[in-house]
Amino acid sequence: MSRESNFIAALRALAPHPAARGLADDCAVLDVGGETLVMTHDMMVEGVHWLPDQDPADVAWKIVATNLSDLAAKGAEPIGVLLGYMLGADDARFVEGLAEALTAFDVPLLGGDTVSGSGGGQAVGLTALGRATCRPVPSRSGARPGDIVWITGPIGAAMLGFEALRDGDATADTTAFRRPVPRLAEGRALAPLASAMMDISDGLLLDATRLAQASEVTLALESAQVLVPASLPPARRMEAMTWGDDYELLAILPAGVQPPCPAHRIGMVTPSGKFPLLVDGAPPAGRIGYEHGNVPS
Amino acid sequence: MSRESNFIAALRALAPHPAARGLADDCAVLDVGGETLVMTHDMMVEGVHWLPDQDPADVAWKIVATNLSDLAAKGAEPIGVLLGYMLGADDARFVEGLAEALTAFDVPLLGGDTVSGSGGGQAVGLTALGRATCRPVPSRSGARPGDIVWITGPIGAAMLGFEALRDGDATADTTAFRRPVPRLAEGRALAPLASAMMDISDGLLLDATRLAQASEVTLALESAQVLVPASLPPARRMEAMTWGDDYELLAILPAGVQPPCPAHRIGMVTPSGKFPLLVDGAPPAGRIGYEHGNVPS
Repeated sequence: MSRESNFIAALRALAPHPAARGLADDCAVLDVGGETLVMTHDMMVEGVHWLPDQDPADVAWKIVATNLSDLAAKGAEPIGVLLGYMLGADDARFVEGLAEALTAFDVPLLGGDTVSGSGGGQAVGLTALGRATCRPVPSRSGARPGDIVWITGPIGAAMLGFEALRDGDATADTTAFRRPVPRLAEGRALAPLASAMMDISDGLLLDATRLAQASEVTLALESAQVLVPASLPPARRMEAMTWGDDYELLAILPAGVQPPCPAHRIGMVTPSGKFPLLVDGAPPAGRIGYEHGNVPS
Repeated sequence: MSRESNFIAALRALAPHPAARGLADDCAVLDVGGETLVMTHDMMVEGVHWLPDQDPADVAWKIVATNLSDLAAKGAEPIGVLLGYMLGADDARFVEGLAEALTAFDVPLLGGDTVSGSGGGQAVGLTALGRATCRPVPSRSGARPGDIVWITGPIGAAMLGFEALRDGDATADTTAFRRPVPRLAEGRALAPLASAMMDISDGLLLDATRLAQASEVTLALESAQVLVPASLPPARRMEAMTWGDDYELLAILPAGVQPPCPAHRIGMVTPSGKFPLLVDGAPPAGRIGYEHGNVPS
Protein backbone atom coordinates (compact mmCIF):
# COMPACT_ATOMS: atom_id res chain seq x y z
CA MET A 1 0.00 0.00 0.00
CA SER A 2 1.16 3.53 -0.66
CA ARG A 3 1.70 6.06 2.10
CA GLU A 4 -1.52 7.75 1.10
CA SER A 5 -3.47 4.48 1.19
CA ASN A 6 -2.18 3.71 4.70
CA PHE A 7 -3.12 7.18 5.88
CA ILE A 8 -6.61 7.01 4.40
CA ALA A 9 -7.16 3.57 5.90
CA ALA A 10 -6.30 5.01 9.33
CA LEU A 11 -8.61 7.99 8.76
CA ARG A 12 -11.48 5.69 7.83
CA ALA A 13 -11.73 4.55 11.46
CA LEU A 14 -12.44 8.20 12.40
CA ALA A 15 -15.23 8.51 9.88
CA PRO A 16 -18.01 6.12 10.96
CA HIS A 17 -20.74 8.72 10.25
CA PRO A 18 -22.86 7.63 7.26
CA ALA A 19 -22.39 11.09 5.71
CA ALA A 20 -18.70 10.25 5.25
CA ARG A 21 -19.59 7.34 2.94
CA GLY A 22 -16.57 5.47 4.28
CA LEU A 23 -14.27 8.14 2.77
CA ALA A 24 -14.74 6.17 -0.46
CA ASP A 25 -16.80 8.65 -2.44
CA ASP A 26 -16.17 12.02 -4.09
CA CYS A 27 -18.14 13.89 -1.43
CA ALA A 28 -19.70 13.74 1.99
CA VAL A 29 -23.49 13.60 1.78
CA LEU A 30 -25.43 14.87 4.78
CA ASP A 31 -29.13 15.38 5.46
CA VAL A 32 -29.69 18.74 7.17
CA GLY A 33 -33.16 20.01 7.80
CA GLY A 34 -35.14 19.10 4.71
CA GLU A 35 -32.14 19.32 2.37
CA THR A 36 -29.30 16.99 1.46
CA LEU A 37 -25.93 18.73 1.53
CA VAL A 38 -22.98 17.59 -0.54
CA MET A 39 -19.51 18.66 0.60
CA THR A 40 -15.99 18.18 -0.68
CA HIS A 41 -12.50 19.52 0.04
CA ASP A 42 -9.56 19.39 -2.37
CA MET A 43 -6.05 20.69 -1.83
CA MET A 44 -3.42 21.60 -4.43
CA VAL A 45 0.33 22.09 -4.00
CA GLU A 46 2.82 24.00 -6.16
CA GLY A 47 5.18 21.61 -7.92
CA VAL A 48 2.79 18.73 -7.28
CA HIS A 49 -0.50 19.84 -8.83
CA TRP A 50 0.74 22.80 -10.82
CA LEU A 51 3.98 23.89 -12.46
CA PRO A 52 5.95 26.41 -10.37
CA ASP A 53 5.82 29.03 -13.14
CA GLN A 54 2.14 28.57 -13.93
CA ASP A 55 -0.22 31.56 -13.88
CA PRO A 56 -1.79 31.83 -10.37
CA ALA A 57 -5.10 32.66 -12.09
CA ASP A 58 -5.07 29.14 -13.56
CA VAL A 59 -4.39 27.68 -10.12
CA ALA A 60 -7.37 29.53 -8.68
CA TRP A 61 -9.61 28.40 -11.53
CA LYS A 62 -8.51 24.80 -11.15
CA ILE A 63 -9.03 24.54 -7.38
CA VAL A 64 -12.58 25.78 -7.90
CA ALA A 65 -13.20 23.55 -10.93
CA THR A 66 -11.88 20.35 -9.34
CA ASN A 67 -14.03 20.79 -6.24
CA LEU A 68 -17.13 21.62 -8.28
CA SER A 69 -16.41 18.53 -10.39
CA ASP A 70 -16.85 16.45 -7.23
CA LEU A 71 -20.23 18.13 -6.69
CA ALA A 72 -21.10 17.47 -10.35
CA ALA A 73 -20.45 13.77 -9.78
CA LYS A 74 -23.23 13.81 -7.17
CA GLY A 75 -25.61 15.82 -9.33
CA ALA A 76 -25.36 18.64 -6.78
CA GLU A 77 -25.96 22.33 -7.32
CA PRO A 78 -23.15 24.48 -5.82
CA ILE A 79 -24.04 26.72 -2.87
CA GLY A 80 -20.67 28.26 -2.08
CA VAL A 81 -16.98 27.72 -1.38
CA LEU A 82 -14.51 28.37 1.44
CA LEU A 83 -10.89 29.07 0.49
CA GLY A 84 -7.71 28.18 2.40
CA TYR A 85 -4.99 30.33 0.85
CA MET A 86 -1.26 30.47 1.48
CA LEU A 87 0.07 33.83 0.30
CA GLY A 88 2.16 33.34 -2.86
CA ALA A 89 4.09 35.08 -5.59
CA ASP A 90 1.18 36.93 -7.20
CA ASP A 91 -1.89 37.01 -5.00
CA ALA A 92 -3.66 39.57 -7.22
CA ARG A 93 -3.53 37.18 -10.21
CA PHE A 94 -4.93 34.43 -7.99
CA VAL A 95 -7.88 36.65 -7.11
CA GLU A 96 -8.46 37.40 -10.81
CA GLY A 97 -8.65 33.70 -11.65
CA LEU A 98 -10.83 33.04 -8.63
CA ALA A 99 -13.24 35.76 -9.74
CA GLU A 100 -13.37 34.29 -13.24
CA ALA A 101 -14.14 30.79 -11.96
CA LEU A 102 -16.74 31.88 -9.40
CA THR A 103 -18.47 33.96 -12.07
CA ALA A 104 -18.29 31.21 -14.69
CA PHE A 105 -19.83 28.63 -12.35
CA ASP A 106 -22.11 31.09 -10.55
CA VAL A 107 -20.97 30.23 -7.03
CA PRO A 108 -20.12 32.68 -4.21
CA LEU A 109 -17.13 32.74 -1.89
CA LEU A 110 -18.46 32.24 1.64
CA GLY A 111 -15.32 32.36 3.78
CA GLY A 112 -11.94 30.85 4.46
CA ASP A 113 -8.51 31.61 5.79
CA THR A 114 -5.31 33.29 4.61
CA VAL A 115 -1.91 32.26 5.95
CA SER A 116 1.75 32.97 5.37
CA GLY A 117 3.90 30.32 3.79
CA SER A 118 7.16 29.12 5.27
CA GLY A 119 9.25 29.42 2.14
CA GLY A 120 8.32 26.08 0.55
CA GLY A 121 5.83 25.44 -2.22
CA GLN A 122 2.51 27.24 -2.02
CA ALA A 123 -0.56 25.23 -0.99
CA VAL A 124 -4.21 26.10 -1.47
CA GLY A 125 -7.35 24.29 -0.36
CA LEU A 126 -10.99 24.74 -1.19
CA THR A 127 -14.17 23.39 0.32
CA ALA A 128 -17.26 23.32 -1.87
CA LEU A 129 -20.75 23.00 -0.49
CA GLY A 130 -23.69 22.00 -2.64
CA ARG A 131 -27.30 20.94 -2.50
CA ALA A 132 -28.39 17.56 -3.85
CA THR A 133 -30.89 17.84 -6.70
CA CYS A 134 -32.05 14.22 -6.51
CA ARG A 135 -32.17 11.49 -3.92
CA PRO A 136 -30.67 9.06 -3.37
CA VAL A 137 -27.47 10.92 -4.23
CA PRO A 138 -25.45 8.69 -6.58
CA SER A 139 -22.38 7.01 -5.14
CA ARG A 140 -19.61 4.88 -6.61
CA SER A 141 -21.15 1.72 -5.29
CA GLY A 142 -24.41 1.16 -7.19
CA ALA A 143 -23.22 -0.30 -10.50
CA ARG A 144 -24.88 -3.65 -11.34
CA PRO A 145 -24.04 -6.29 -13.92
CA GLY A 146 -25.75 -5.46 -17.19
CA ASP A 147 -25.45 -1.69 -16.70
CA ILE A 148 -23.75 0.40 -19.37
CA VAL A 149 -20.66 2.59 -18.82
CA TRP A 150 -20.89 6.13 -20.22
CA ILE A 151 -18.48 9.05 -20.24
CA THR A 152 -19.38 12.70 -20.86
CA GLY A 153 -16.43 13.67 -23.06
CA PRO A 154 -12.97 12.94 -24.43
CA ILE A 155 -9.91 11.87 -22.45
CA GLY A 156 -6.35 13.06 -23.03
CA ALA A 157 -6.65 16.79 -23.70
CA ALA A 158 -5.39 17.63 -20.19
CA MET A 159 -2.31 15.44 -20.71
CA LEU A 160 -1.49 17.15 -24.00
CA GLY A 161 -2.12 20.56 -22.45
CA PHE A 162 0.18 19.80 -19.53
CA GLU A 163 2.97 18.66 -21.83
CA ALA A 164 2.69 21.78 -23.98
CA LEU A 165 2.76 24.01 -20.89
CA ARG A 166 5.74 22.15 -19.43
CA ASP A 167 7.62 22.33 -22.74
CA GLY A 168 6.75 25.96 -23.42
CA ASP A 169 4.96 25.07 -26.67
CA ALA A 170 3.01 28.26 -27.36
CA THR A 171 1.30 26.83 -30.45
CA ALA A 172 -0.64 24.14 -28.55
CA ASP A 173 -3.94 24.55 -26.73
CA THR A 174 -3.33 24.13 -22.99
CA THR A 175 -6.85 25.08 -21.89
CA ALA A 176 -7.92 21.57 -20.90
CA PHE A 177 -5.12 21.31 -18.34
CA ARG A 178 -5.28 24.90 -17.11
CA ARG A 179 -9.01 25.57 -17.11
CA PRO A 180 -11.05 22.38 -16.74
CA VAL A 181 -14.83 22.77 -16.73
CA PRO A 182 -16.83 20.80 -14.16
CA ARG A 183 -19.74 18.94 -15.76
CA LEU A 184 -22.35 20.44 -13.45
CA ALA A 185 -25.31 20.43 -15.85
CA GLU A 186 -24.43 16.93 -17.07
CA GLY A 187 -24.16 15.72 -13.48
CA ARG A 188 -27.60 17.05 -12.60
CA ALA A 189 -29.08 15.46 -15.74
CA LEU A 190 -27.47 12.07 -15.12
CA ALA A 191 -27.84 11.80 -11.33
CA PRO A 192 -31.51 10.71 -11.23
CA LEU A 193 -30.79 7.95 -13.78
CA ALA A 194 -27.34 6.72 -12.72
CA SER A 195 -26.72 3.48 -10.83
CA ALA A 196 -23.31 4.95 -9.92
CA MET A 197 -21.30 8.02 -10.89
CA MET A 198 -17.94 9.69 -10.24
CA ASP A 199 -15.72 12.28 -11.85
CA ILE A 200 -12.50 11.28 -13.58
CA SER A 201 -9.71 13.13 -11.83
CA ASP A 202 -6.91 10.59 -11.41
CA GLY A 203 -7.13 8.70 -14.71
CA LEU A 204 -9.99 6.87 -16.42
CA LEU A 205 -8.57 3.42 -15.68
CA LEU A 206 -7.81 4.09 -12.00
CA ASP A 207 -11.13 5.82 -11.38
CA ALA A 208 -13.07 3.08 -13.23
CA THR A 209 -11.26 0.53 -11.06
CA ARG A 210 -12.31 2.41 -7.92
CA LEU A 211 -15.93 2.48 -9.04
CA ALA A 212 -15.81 -1.24 -9.89
CA GLN A 213 -14.34 -2.07 -6.48
CA ALA A 214 -16.88 0.08 -4.62
CA SER A 215 -19.70 -1.61 -6.57
CA GLU A 216 -18.14 -5.11 -6.35
CA VAL A 217 -18.43 -5.63 -10.09
CA THR A 218 -16.11 -5.69 -13.08
CA LEU A 219 -16.08 -2.85 -15.61
CA ALA A 220 -15.30 -4.04 -19.13
CA LEU A 221 -14.19 -1.09 -21.27
CA GLU A 222 -13.52 -0.95 -25.00
CA SER A 223 -10.59 1.37 -25.63
CA ALA A 224 -11.69 2.14 -29.18
CA GLN A 225 -14.91 3.69 -27.83
CA VAL A 226 -13.05 6.24 -25.67
CA LEU A 227 -12.95 9.57 -27.46
CA VAL A 228 -9.55 11.24 -27.59
CA PRO A 229 -8.39 14.57 -29.08
CA ALA A 230 -7.59 14.47 -32.80
CA SER A 231 -4.04 15.58 -31.97
CA LEU A 232 -3.33 12.55 -29.76
CA PRO A 233 -0.93 10.10 -31.45
CA PRO A 234 -2.78 6.75 -31.77
CA ALA A 235 0.00 4.98 -29.84
CA ARG A 236 -0.73 7.15 -26.79
CA ARG A 237 -4.43 6.24 -26.42
CA MET A 238 -3.78 3.88 -23.50
CA GLU A 239 -1.51 6.44 -21.81
CA ALA A 240 -4.25 9.08 -22.09
CA MET A 241 -6.60 6.69 -20.29
CA THR A 242 -4.22 6.61 -17.31
CA TRP A 243 -3.76 10.39 -17.15
CA GLY A 244 -5.90 12.47 -14.83
CA ASP A 245 -7.26 16.00 -14.86
CA ASP A 246 -9.89 15.63 -17.57
CA TYR A 247 -12.84 15.95 -15.15
CA GLU A 248 -15.38 14.21 -17.33
CA LEU A 249 -18.07 12.20 -15.56
CA LEU A 250 -18.09 8.41 -15.56
CA ALA A 251 -21.77 7.43 -15.33
CA ILE A 252 -23.21 3.95 -15.03
CA LEU A 253 -26.74 3.73 -16.44
CA PRO A 254 -29.10 0.77 -16.59
CA ALA A 255 -29.24 -0.89 -20.03
CA GLY A 256 -31.78 0.84 -22.27
CA VAL A 257 -31.52 4.21 -20.52
CA GLN A 258 -30.23 6.92 -22.83
CA PRO A 259 -28.18 9.72 -21.25
CA PRO A 260 -30.06 13.05 -21.34
CA CYS A 261 -26.84 14.93 -22.19
CA PRO A 262 -23.87 14.44 -24.51
CA ALA A 263 -22.09 11.21 -23.49
CA HIS A 264 -20.69 8.16 -25.21
CA ARG A 265 -20.75 4.52 -24.31
CA ILE A 266 -17.36 3.00 -23.46
CA GLY A 267 -18.21 -0.38 -21.96
CA MET A 268 -20.43 -2.45 -19.75
CA VAL A 269 -20.69 -3.78 -16.23
CA THR A 270 -20.22 -7.52 -15.69
CA PRO A 271 -20.35 -9.64 -12.55
CA SER A 272 -17.28 -9.30 -10.36
CA GLY A 273 -14.54 -11.38 -11.95
CA LYS A 274 -10.86 -11.93 -11.28
CA PHE A 275 -10.10 -8.28 -12.06
CA PRO A 276 -12.14 -5.16 -11.28
CA LEU A 277 -11.29 -3.68 -14.70
CA LEU A 278 -10.88 -5.16 -18.15
CA VAL A 279 -9.80 -3.11 -21.16
CA ASP A 280 -10.46 -4.89 -24.46
CA GLY A 281 -10.90 -8.08 -22.47
CA ALA A 282 -7.68 -7.99 -20.42
CA PRO A 283 -6.58 -6.31 -17.17
CA PRO A 284 -4.53 -3.19 -17.92
CA ALA A 285 -0.80 -3.55 -17.30
CA GLY A 286 1.40 -1.04 -15.48
CA ARG A 287 0.36 2.12 -13.72
CA ILE A 288 -3.28 2.98 -14.33
CA GLY A 289 -3.50 6.47 -12.81
CA TYR A 290 -2.28 9.00 -10.27
CA GLU A 291 -2.61 8.02 -6.64
CA HIS A 292 -2.89 11.60 -5.49
CA GLY A 293 -3.08 13.61 -8.63
CA ASN A 294 0.61 14.42 -8.97
CA VAL A 295 1.65 16.39 -11.99
CA PRO A 296 3.67 13.75 -13.84
CA SER A 297 7.09 14.74 -15.09
CA MET B 1 -2.10 47.70 4.53
CA SER B 2 -0.44 44.32 4.89
CA ARG B 3 -0.29 41.81 2.05
CA GLU B 4 -2.96 39.80 3.79
CA SER B 5 -5.24 42.84 4.21
CA ASN B 6 -4.93 43.67 0.51
CA PHE B 7 -5.71 40.10 -0.44
CA ILE B 8 -8.75 39.90 1.83
CA ALA B 9 -10.03 43.25 0.55
CA ALA B 10 -9.86 41.84 -2.99
CA LEU B 11 -11.63 38.63 -1.93
CA ARG B 12 -14.42 40.60 -0.31
CA ALA B 13 -15.66 41.66 -3.75
CA LEU B 14 -16.17 37.97 -4.54
CA ALA B 15 -18.24 37.37 -1.42
CA PRO B 16 -21.44 39.42 -1.77
CA HIS B 17 -23.59 36.54 -0.47
CA PRO B 18 -25.04 37.44 2.96
CA ALA B 19 -23.84 34.08 4.30
CA ALA B 20 -20.27 35.31 3.88
CA ARG B 21 -20.89 38.15 6.36
CA GLY B 22 -18.50 40.32 4.35
CA LEU B 23 -15.63 37.94 5.26
CA ALA B 24 -15.53 39.89 8.52
CA ASP B 25 -16.77 37.22 10.90
CA ASP B 26 -15.41 33.97 12.32
CA CYS B 27 -17.73 31.86 10.18
CA ALA B 28 -20.08 31.80 7.24
CA VAL B 29 -23.70 31.51 8.36
CA LEU B 30 -26.13 29.98 5.90
CA ASP B 31 -29.81 29.04 6.12
CA VAL B 32 -30.37 25.61 4.56
CA GLY B 33 -33.49 23.51 4.76
CA GLY B 34 -34.90 25.02 7.96
CA GLU B 35 -31.54 24.89 9.73
CA THR B 36 -28.83 27.51 10.02
CA LEU B 37 -25.41 26.15 9.11
CA VAL B 38 -22.20 27.64 10.43
CA MET B 39 -19.01 26.93 8.50
CA THR B 40 -15.37 27.82 8.89
CA HIS B 41 -12.03 26.87 7.34
CA ASP B 42 -8.62 27.36 8.97
CA MET B 43 -5.22 26.46 7.58
CA MET B 44 -1.97 25.87 9.46
CA VAL B 45 1.60 25.79 8.13
CA GLU B 46 4.72 24.20 9.60
CA GLY B 47 7.16 26.86 10.78
CA VAL B 48 4.39 29.46 10.77
CA HIS B 49 1.71 28.01 13.06
CA TRP B 50 3.71 25.21 14.64
CA LEU B 51 7.34 24.53 15.43
CA PRO B 52 9.01 22.20 12.90
CA ASP B 53 9.85 19.62 15.59
CA GLN B 54 6.44 19.68 17.25
CA ASP B 55 4.50 16.46 17.73
CA PRO B 56 2.16 15.97 14.71
CA ALA B 57 -0.51 14.80 17.16
CA ASP B 58 -0.54 18.32 18.63
CA VAL B 59 -0.86 19.81 15.15
CA ALA B 60 -3.88 17.61 14.45
CA TRP B 61 -5.46 18.53 17.77
CA LYS B 62 -4.91 22.21 17.17
CA ILE B 63 -6.35 22.37 13.65
CA VAL B 64 -9.51 20.74 14.99
CA ALA B 65 -9.62 22.95 18.10
CA THR B 66 -9.08 26.24 16.28
CA ASN B 67 -11.85 25.52 13.79
CA LEU B 68 -14.26 24.39 16.50
CA SER B 69 -13.40 27.56 18.40
CA ASP B 70 -14.82 29.53 15.48
CA LEU B 71 -18.02 27.49 15.74
CA ALA B 72 -18.06 28.11 19.51
CA ALA B 73 -17.97 31.85 18.85
CA LYS B 74 -21.26 31.46 16.97
CA GLY B 75 -22.82 29.22 19.62
CA ALA B 76 -22.89 26.42 17.07
CA GLU B 77 -22.94 22.69 17.66
CA PRO B 78 -20.35 20.84 15.51
CA ILE B 79 -21.67 18.48 12.83
CA GLY B 80 -18.43 17.30 11.23
CA VAL B 81 -15.10 18.23 9.69
CA LEU B 82 -13.31 17.84 6.36
CA LEU B 83 -9.52 17.56 6.39
CA GLY B 84 -7.03 18.75 3.79
CA TYR B 85 -3.78 16.95 4.60
CA MET B 86 -0.32 17.21 3.08
CA LEU B 87 1.62 14.05 3.86
CA GLY B 88 4.34 14.80 6.43
CA ALA B 89 7.04 13.33 8.60
CA ASP B 90 4.83 11.18 10.83
CA ASP B 91 1.34 10.75 9.44
CA ALA B 92 0.47 8.04 11.98
CA ARG B 93 1.04 10.45 14.89
CA PHE B 94 -1.15 13.01 13.12
CA VAL B 95 -3.97 10.45 12.93
CA GLU B 96 -3.55 9.69 16.65
CA GLY B 97 -3.94 13.35 17.58
CA LEU B 98 -6.84 13.74 15.17
CA ALA B 99 -8.60 10.77 16.79
CA GLU B 100 -8.05 12.28 20.24
CA ALA B 101 -9.48 15.64 19.23
CA LEU B 102 -12.48 14.25 17.35
CA THR B 103 -13.29 12.03 20.34
CA ALA B 104 -12.78 14.82 22.87
CA PHE B 105 -15.10 17.17 21.01
CA ASP B 106 -17.46 14.45 19.75
CA VAL B 107 -17.32 15.39 16.09
CA PRO B 108 -16.91 13.00 13.12
CA LEU B 109 -14.58 13.24 10.16
CA LEU B 110 -16.76 13.57 7.04
CA GLY B 111 -14.22 13.76 4.21
CA GLY B 112 -11.28 15.62 2.77
CA ASP B 113 -8.22 15.22 0.63
CA THR B 114 -4.66 13.93 0.99
CA VAL B 115 -1.82 15.32 -1.12
CA SER B 116 1.94 15.01 -1.46
CA GLY B 117 4.10 17.90 -0.39
CA SER B 118 6.74 19.46 -2.60
CA GLY B 119 9.56 19.41 -0.07
CA GLY B 120 8.66 22.63 1.76
CA GLY B 121 6.84 23.02 5.05
CA GLN B 122 3.80 20.87 5.63
CA ALA B 123 0.36 22.52 5.39
CA VAL B 124 -2.94 21.26 6.72
CA GLY B 125 -6.43 22.69 6.42
CA LEU B 126 -9.69 21.85 8.10
CA THR B 127 -13.28 22.83 7.41
CA ALA B 128 -15.73 22.58 10.29
CA LEU B 129 -19.46 22.50 9.79
CA GLY B 130 -21.91 23.19 12.59
CA ARG B 131 -25.54 23.84 13.31
CA ALA B 132 -26.63 27.09 14.96
CA THR B 133 -28.33 26.61 18.32
CA CYS B 134 -29.90 30.06 18.44
CA ARG B 135 -30.93 32.73 15.96
CA PRO B 136 -29.89 35.30 15.12
CA VAL B 137 -26.39 33.82 15.18
CA PRO B 138 -24.12 36.30 17.00
CA SER B 139 -21.69 38.28 14.86
CA ARG B 140 -18.89 40.72 15.65
CA SER B 141 -21.06 43.67 14.78
CA GLY B 142 -23.80 43.88 17.42
CA ALA B 143 -22.00 45.53 20.35
CA ARG B 144 -23.79 48.69 21.60
CA PRO B 145 -22.65 51.45 23.93
CA GLY B 146 -23.41 50.48 27.50
CA ASP B 147 -22.82 46.75 26.91
CA ILE B 148 -20.32 44.91 29.06
CA VAL B 149 -17.23 43.06 27.78
CA TRP B 150 -16.72 39.54 29.15
CA ILE B 151 -14.07 36.90 28.56
CA THR B 152 -14.38 33.20 29.34
CA GLY B 153 -10.90 32.59 30.76
CA PRO B 154 -7.31 33.70 31.23
CA ILE B 155 -4.96 35.07 28.59
CA GLY B 156 -1.25 34.30 28.30
CA ALA B 157 -0.96 30.58 28.98
CA ALA B 158 -0.51 29.82 25.27
CA MET B 159 2.34 32.35 25.05
CA LEU B 160 4.13 30.77 28.01
CA GLY B 161 3.51 27.30 26.62
CA PHE B 162 4.93 28.27 23.23
CA GLU B 163 8.05 29.74 24.80
CA ALA B 164 8.65 26.64 26.93
CA LEU B 165 8.22 24.40 23.89
CA ARG B 166 10.52 26.54 21.76
CA ASP B 167 13.17 26.62 24.51
CA GLY B 168 12.88 22.92 25.33
CA ASP B 169 11.86 23.66 28.91
CA ALA B 170 10.51 20.29 30.02
CA THR B 171 9.43 21.56 33.47
CA ALA B 172 6.82 24.00 32.14
CA ASP B 173 3.25 23.19 31.17
CA THR B 174 2.87 23.62 27.41
CA THR B 175 -0.67 22.29 27.18
CA ALA B 176 -2.34 25.63 26.52
CA PHE B 177 -0.28 26.16 23.36
CA ARG B 178 -0.33 22.55 22.16
CA ARG B 179 -3.86 21.49 23.06
CA PRO B 180 -6.27 24.42 23.24
CA VAL B 181 -9.87 23.62 24.13
CA PRO B 182 -12.64 25.32 22.14
CA ARG B 183 -15.26 26.85 24.42
CA LEU B 184 -18.17 25.06 22.78
CA ALA B 185 -20.45 24.78 25.82
CA GLU B 186 -19.70 28.36 26.84
CA GLY B 187 -20.43 29.56 23.31
CA ARG B 188 -23.81 27.84 23.25
CA ALA B 189 -24.67 29.30 26.66
CA LEU B 190 -23.62 32.83 25.72
CA ALA B 191 -24.93 33.01 22.13
CA PRO B 192 -28.62 33.69 22.94
CA LEU B 193 -27.60 36.55 25.26
CA ALA B 194 -24.66 38.14 23.43
CA SER B 195 -24.87 41.39 21.47
CA ALA B 196 -21.65 40.31 19.76
CA MET B 197 -19.15 37.49 20.18
CA MET B 198 -15.88 36.17 18.72
CA ASP B 199 -13.06 33.87 19.72
CA ILE B 200 -9.65 35.24 20.63
CA SER B 201 -7.18 33.68 18.23
CA ASP B 202 -4.86 36.50 17.18
CA GLY B 203 -4.48 38.41 20.46
CA LEU B 204 -7.04 39.95 22.82
CA LEU B 205 -6.22 43.52 21.79
CA LEU B 206 -6.31 42.88 18.04
CA ASP B 207 -9.47 40.79 18.23
CA ALA B 208 -11.18 43.33 20.51
CA THR B 209 -10.25 46.03 17.99
CA ARG B 210 -11.80 44.00 15.19
CA LEU B 211 -15.02 43.55 17.15
CA ALA B 212 -15.13 47.27 17.98
CA GLN B 213 -14.62 48.20 14.33
CA ALA B 214 -17.28 45.76 13.12
CA SER B 215 -19.70 47.18 15.70
CA GLU B 216 -18.67 50.81 15.15
CA VAL B 217 -18.09 51.35 18.85
CA THR B 218 -15.13 51.71 21.19
CA LEU B 219 -14.18 48.92 23.60
CA ALA B 220 -12.71 50.25 26.86
CA LEU B 221 -10.79 47.47 28.61
CA GLU B 222 -9.23 47.46 32.06
CA SER B 223 -6.01 45.47 31.95
CA ALA B 224 -6.13 44.66 35.68
CA GLN B 225 -9.38 42.74 35.11
CA VAL B 226 -7.85 40.39 32.55
CA LEU B 227 -6.93 37.10 34.21
CA VAL B 228 -3.43 35.83 33.51
CA PRO B 229 -1.59 32.67 34.61
CA ALA B 230 0.09 32.93 38.04
CA SER B 231 3.42 32.19 36.38
CA LEU B 232 3.23 35.25 34.09
CA PRO B 233 5.69 37.98 35.16
CA PRO B 234 3.61 41.10 35.96
CA ALA B 235 5.63 43.14 33.45
CA ARG B 236 4.43 40.85 30.66
CA ARG B 237 0.68 41.33 31.18
CA MET B 238 0.33 43.69 28.20
CA GLU B 239 2.39 41.39 26.00
CA ALA B 240 0.11 38.48 26.91
CA MET B 241 -2.85 40.56 25.76
CA THR B 242 -1.29 40.85 22.29
CA TRP B 243 -0.47 37.14 21.99
CA GLY B 244 -2.87 34.82 20.24
CA ASP B 245 -3.77 31.15 20.54
CA ASP B 246 -5.71 31.27 23.82
CA TYR B 247 -9.09 30.59 22.18
CA GLU B 248 -11.21 32.06 24.94
CA LEU B 249 -14.45 33.75 23.89
CA LEU B 250 -14.89 37.51 23.94
CA ALA B 251 -18.58 38.08 24.62
CA ILE B 252 -20.45 41.38 24.70
CA LEU B 253 -23.54 41.23 26.92
CA PRO B 254 -26.11 43.92 27.66
CA ALA B 255 -25.60 45.59 31.04
CA GLY B 256 -27.30 43.64 33.81
CA VAL B 257 -27.11 40.28 32.00
CA GLN B 258 -25.00 37.77 33.91
CA PRO B 259 -23.08 35.19 31.86
CA PRO B 260 -24.53 31.68 32.35
CA CYS B 261 -21.02 30.17 32.39
CA PRO B 262 -17.63 31.03 33.92
CA ALA B 263 -16.54 34.41 32.57
CA HIS B 264 -15.10 37.62 33.93
CA ARG B 265 -15.77 41.22 33.11
CA ILE B 266 -12.88 43.09 31.48
CA GLY B 267 -14.43 46.32 30.26
CA MET B 268 -17.32 48.09 28.67
CA VAL B 269 -18.58 49.34 25.34
CA THR B 270 -18.67 53.10 24.74
CA PRO B 271 -19.79 55.16 21.75
CA SER B 272 -17.32 55.15 18.87
CA GLY B 273 -14.52 57.53 19.74
CA LYS B 274 -11.22 58.47 18.21
CA PHE B 275 -9.88 54.94 18.78
CA PRO B 276 -11.67 51.59 18.49
CA LEU B 277 -9.87 50.26 21.56
CA LEU B 278 -8.82 51.82 24.84
CA VAL B 279 -6.81 49.96 27.47
CA ASP B 280 -6.86 51.70 30.85
CA GLY B 281 -8.10 54.81 29.06
CA ALA B 282 -5.48 55.03 26.30
CA PRO B 283 -5.04 53.43 22.86
CA PRO B 284 -2.53 50.58 23.06
CA ALA B 285 0.87 51.33 21.52
CA GLY B 286 2.83 49.05 19.21
CA ARG B 287 1.77 45.77 17.71
CA ILE B 288 -1.50 44.51 19.21
CA GLY B 289 -1.69 40.98 17.74
CA TYR B 290 -0.86 38.59 14.95
CA GLU B 291 -2.15 39.46 11.51
CA HIS B 292 -2.27 35.90 10.40
CA GLY B 293 -1.52 33.86 13.43
CA ASN B 294 2.22 33.44 12.89
CA VAL B 295 4.13 31.66 15.58
CA PRO B 296 6.15 34.58 16.96
CA SER B 297 9.85 34.11 17.31
